[in-house]
Amino acid sequence: MRISELAQRSGVPTATIKLYIREGLLARGNVTSRTQAEYGEEHLVRLRLIASLKSIQGLPLSKLADILAIVDSPPDDVLEATGAAVAALPPYADDEPEEPILARAVLGEHGLPYDPDYPATHHLNAALEVLQASDMPADAHWLGFYISAARNIARAELAPLEGMDPAEAAAYSALGTALYEPLFLALRRLAHYEFLTTTTCSDSAEK
Amino acid sequence: MRISELAQRSGVPTATIKLYIREGLLARGNVTSRTQAEYGEEHLVRLRLIASLKSIQGLPLSKLADILAIVDSPPDDVLEATGAAVAALPPYADDEPEEPILARAVLGEHGLPYDPDYPATHHLNAALEVLQASDMPADAHWLGFYISAARNIARAELAPLEGMDPAEAAAYSALGTALYEPLFLALRRLAHYEFLTTTTCSDSAEK
Repeated sequence: MRISELAQRSGVPTATIKLYIREGLLARGNVTSRTQAEYGEEHLVRLRLIASLKSIQGLPLSKLADILAIVDSPPDDVLEATGAAVAALPPYADDEPEEPILARAVLGEHGLPYDPDYPATHHLNAALEVLQASDMPADAHWLGFYISAARNIARAELAPLEGMDPAEAAAYSALGTALYEPLFLALRRLAHYEFLTTTTCSDSAEK
Repeated sequence: MRISELAQRSGVPTATIKLYIREGLLARGNVTSRTQAEYGEEHLVRLRLIASLKSIQGLPLSKLADILAIVDSPPDDVLEATGAAVAALPPYADDEPEEPILARAVLGEHGLPYDPDYPATHHLNAALEVLQASDMPADAHWLGFYISAARNIARAELAPLEGMDPAEAAAYSALGTALYEPLFLALRRLAHYEFLTTTTCSDSAEK
């Protein structure tokens, strides 16, 4: 197809498609004349992947390019490809973060792996510091409850990785990690709303 | 106690305490002389609440003041106090948001309440729009799984509301909604990491 049809079918303006080609995010089409090139279905798929990555809140263009580079030349190992793609996602830890002491203790206590080079270890530490400074409950019982819920969700989310090649796995993991986060947070708040509007305090007292 | 002791025990600098008093976020102490005032435990509790609210990512000072105003003069009803406090939290919907068509369909299908004035309804709609534009799964089965997980978490999180007065409930709900979000997202990513580092693809294939 011509670039005009690619623009129409993908919903991405021609100028943006040309920009992506110049930036190396999208392959050039097959040149058919001095002024024209031919594009295929693989260009459509790629434009959809770029659009999805662009919808990730707080993902800078440089990190988007990092994820595309992993998809283009993934490590042979599916797990390694997945890990590299997810590590490119926000939020980003400091360059030289403090030792995540609280996170190490909690992860050890609940049998989760401790890796100070994995960004979420530092996200957890920051969240625990905030909770510790507040009066909100964050004891082992509460944390165990959240960890068990997180494990259930993670297990279901990772099941589709089975049978994917490393490039597919990298794209799926990066998009899945980022796009399901706002979905889940919205649903959690809506579940709060459901309980608050359908349960009165006297209802729960009767149980 | 004197303001210097209040500063020391709360960890909040004297200048900041004075600023909070000028802004009406913290009550004045009991004036004991022309240059001195006496502060009590209630000032310490209040400073801790302000510090906790300040740790919420993306909460502007005006909304922080809104939450404190609800805590100070809560509606008689616990549920109303809770709803008002949570509605002050980020992320904020547009002033005139589009009709959340996708969210309405999903909420209806899964028996969750639909209220276009509740901000999370629009967060859900935005997340669904992004997922729909991507190739990521977001069918009824997947959404049902997330909704069931969200309901389990919400039920446990709201249990402590039982027995709280409206002011306590407002503070607890606002802090709980905001502070447990980053905790849960970090734990989810750590659970991914756990599965990816302890399960190989051949393991899952054998099941």
